[in-house]
Amino acid sequence: MRSNIITISREFGSGGRLVGRQLAEKLGYKYYDKNLLDEISVENGFSRELMEEDEKRAKNSFLYSLTNAFGAAGYGPDTLSINERFFIAQFEYITRLAESGEKCVIVGRCADYVLREFKNNTDIFIYAPYEDRIKRAVDDYGVDPKDAENMLEEVDKARENYYKYHTGRKWGTHTNYHMSINSGYMQIDDIVDMIIEFLDKRVYFDE
Amino acid sequence: MRSNIITISREFGSGGRLVGRQLAEKLGYKYYDKNLLDEISVENGFSRELMEEDEKRAKNSFLYSLTNAFGAAGYGPDTLSINERFFIAQFEYITRLAESGEKCVIVGRCADYVLREFKNNTDIFIYAPYEDRIKRAVDDYGVDPKDAENMLEEVDKARENYYKYHTGRKWGTHTNYHMSINSGYMQIDDIVDMIIEFLDKRVYFDE
Repeated sequence: MRSNIITISREFGSGGRLVGRQLAEKLGYKYYDKNLLDEISVENGFSRELMEEDEKRAKNSFLYSLTNAFGAAGYGPDTLSINERFFIAQFEYITRLAESGEKCVIVGRCADYVLREFKNNTDIFIYAPYEDRIKRAVDDYGVDPKDAENMLEEVDKARENYYKYHTGRKWGTHTNYHMSINSGYMQIDDIVDMIIEFLDKRVYFDE
Repeated sequence: MRSNIITISREFGSGGRLVGRQLAEKLGYKYYDKNLLDEISVENGFSRELMEEDEKRAKNSFLYSLTNAFGAAGYGPDTLSINERFFIAQFEYITRLAESGEKCVIVGRCADYVLREFKNNTDIFIYAPYEDRIKRAVDDYGVDPKDAENMLEEVDKARENYYKYHTGRKWGTHTNYHMSINSGYMQIDDIVDMIIEFLDKRVYFDE
């Protein structure tokens, strides 16, 4: 098995993060997600408050189109807000993980797109039926039942916007990934085993 | 393993049909695709010539929107053309396969949608990178290299139209399937084994 990096993209409430964590554990790999990458950014001098504002900006589709217009009008790196510098720093960090041969599982953060030139990484998408995701949000994530519907919609919409903002691609489209698994029909550890099966069976390229 | 029926939907040139055939063989299941279902229709009295015309109609997106308009305007079964009767007969045949507990693999024919109420069927989508599909079309299907690009585009567009015509849904969207596999990274028999792994690991419902 030669994937140094496995990226997990996922719908909210599909258990994708859990899959990523257990996969890392089973493989003896490091685990990265937004929380850890944000910690690293803060250690590197970024303000947590500003980072959170910038996240909100990327996830707001109206502002996305505004910012895109500015970008298209030719505003260069000197005019980059903290916004851009923070994201670029995280994406560069992810790229350096790959270049250094670090073995890890990365959940979210457009990692599949950031690492698209690395041929031996494996990209997985986890999703689930709507009712299953509502149930997980309420039972496992402690979401208030009356908020669950809206939250599902908003978080995934935000993810779609964030992804499009940084990649120009449509989040969730099968062509982005090596395999997509509907987690509504399997236990988490069985999904992890399916992914490991794919990692063992897939062909790899000389790099 | 309790799926009596596995449906395979696939991009042109992804090897999906081969996966379906080998899966059926490995499981000791029957195998159905357009060819066999058309044979059955002809045996049941449908004219092959008219069937082929109707296929073309469903795969033409302009006519799809026209026909849809007629449908929305409330034209009932008496006004159905041979067109509709032929498709309905095939879809009813597929439904009877499921009701009878027949163990089979069905490739294409919107079978995932036709059988959407049967909880224990498994629906798989097979796709592949563009270059791999061109290569398979030329090397394995005998397509003329100068026709391959157009053919890929046309066949998949036709599939998308046919699927939308009959289901109202978007073909290829992950939510239609239990698992989607990029066949560009694995041998056909390994993909078959992955599917069997899914069939063995997934949860089933009392029906």
